[in-house]
Amino acid sequence: MNKGTLSFTREIAVRFNEADPLGIVWHGHYVRYFEDGREAFGQAFGLSYLDIYKHGYSVPVVKIDLDYKKSLKYGDRVIIETEFIPCHAAKLQFIYRLYNAVTKELVAKGSTTQVFLDHPENNLQLINPPFFEAWKQKHLGAG
Amino acid sequence: MNKGTLSFTREIAVRFNEADPLGIVWHGHYVRYFEDGREAFGQAFGLSYLDIYKHGYSVPVVKIDLDYKKSLKYGDRVIIETEFIPCHAAKLQFIYRLYNAVTKELVAKGSTTQVFLDHPENNLQLINPPFFEAWKQKHLGAG
Amino acid sequence: MNKGTLSFTREIAVRFNEADPLGIVWHGHYVRYFEDGREAFGQAFGLSYLDIYKHGYSVPVVKIDLDYKKSLKYGDRVIIETEFIPCHAAKLQFIYRLYNAVTKELVAKGSTTQVFLDHPENNLQLINPPFFEAWKQKHLGAG
Amino acid sequence: MNKGTLSFTREIAVRFNEADPLGIVWHGHYVRYFEDGREAFGQAFGLSYLDIYKHGYSVPVVKIDLDYKKSLKYGDRVIIETEFIPCHAAKLQFIYRLYNAVTKELVAKGSTTQVFLDHPENNLQLINPPFFEAWKQKHLGAG
Repeated sequence: MNKGTLSFTREIAVRFNEADPLGIVWHGHYVRYFEDGREAFGQAFGLSYLDIYKHGYSVPVVKIDLDYKKSLKYGDRVIIETEFIPCHAAKLQFIYRLYNAVTKELVAKGSTTQVFLDHPENNLQLINPPFFEAWKQKHLGAG
Repeated sequence: MNKGTLSFTREIAVRFNEADPLGIVWHGHYVRYFEDGREAFGQAFGLSYLDIYKHGYSVPVVKIDLDYKKSLKYGDRVIIETEFIPCHAAKLQFIYRLYNAVTKELVAKGSTTQVFLDHPENNLQLINPPFFEAWKQKHLGAG
Repeated sequence: MNKGTLSFTREIAVRFNEADPLGIVWHGHYVRYFEDGREAFGQAFGLSYLDIYKHGYSVPVVKIDLDYKKSLKYGDRVIIETEFIPCHAAKLQFIYRLYNAVTKELVAKGSTTQVFLDHPENNLQLINPPFFEAWKQKHLGAG
Repeated sequence: MNKGTLSFTREIAVRFNEADPLGIVWHGHYVRYFEDGREAFGQAFGLSYLDIYKHGYSVPVVKIDLDYKKSLKYGDRVIIETEFIPCHAAKLQFIYRLYNAVTKELVAKGSTTQVFLDHPENNLQLINPPFFEAWKQKHLGAG
């Protein structure tokens, strides 16, 4: 029984120091926006880096892709929508959609994949850690 | 008539301030490593941001993807291999391979796509600018 | 006639990617925190970069100093207190105090000095621009 | 017998992503340039972060000041001169001078102060660690 998607929305402001000589946000900063969105999601649903760390794991990003649709400039406000993508593998997957808060245009979209390493051995986990299975059960329902 | 690949290699050192609380380079900084590689390529072959700008264009990144294979830590040295990928569309495409300079292991790989905007109107160019056609002819040979 | 101080307080969260391999916020990021505080002040009192730019000026930082008292770590919340320091010279001066939002301890303090350049000539202004005199009159009262 | 000053010079290139919408290097990035200079000094004279860490200490920055004289733009090359400033207290002090590599103009100057914390207790050291006394003896001569 799939209870539907789990997503969280956060609004941020573009900082002066994030825009480049072309006057637009340098493309590398969007990786930080994704992380801001992911952390906002994590704090809303108990899946932040610190929550995960307390369970004995770290979750390094192993894959990221971004598509840039529109530019952002200093002073713009951005809506970051972060959606959890369930999968069977022992991975954390999110997709992100960034919108200009005024024009509502889609500015960028992308996704990240993270894996679980135990702490402090840093062994890659091939099956989902129990805490994460419980988290999925609670928030997304059983299969 | 050279129809081979055009690539350039640059070695950099991981900075202290690029590593995160896990002791490894934060994944977002790899976007900067890619840009370092692309600029080293550009300076070697006359295709840097400033070269392109002198011809009346800017080349914003519209797509990027990265796969992370191994972690990097402060003090590591990284070899960035940047390869130009010819295509018929009015785009600049590169692939990147990052290697640990000591172990020679592949650390990360990825690609970027850039488009041409004229200056100062910022109109998307649907066909290759003449200077870029000439550049391709010179460096990669005729079709 | 208000001759008191003009200050503004903003609370931010330390990002994961701002902490270094020692687990504490890398000292260079505090410059960004100061700018966050200054911009929050500017937006509260009509003196943001964009406000100033509309009047025909830019205000580059020409001097900064920071004293670090306590470390900050990922997950900490920080109170940034930004205070405008009136002076007779054609300068913008602020002092900053950063507090740990939980312990209330002083984490860092510092100051910045900015000058006025006109746009687009970039000439250094030796007397205060009229808009800034009017701003001071409005917010801090007459001499 | 003071053998004179100990300094080291390194040249770097301004990155595209370090310049802001005004087309000049954002002032916060100079903190990174200082760290680049300090690390180049440390690698030349056996006083890098990793060298110090091997002796059981970390050296957080507790004070920094910067004076900006001229702007830098994307494409500029910068000479970073880092000079060790001896002092009797248990501190590491450096002054920095940044020059435009072409015009030779002084672009910025500043200083940093670092203290010694032992590892892993993080206790502030009130007297110089033995390794650092030996380092000073070797590189600067006895008092």
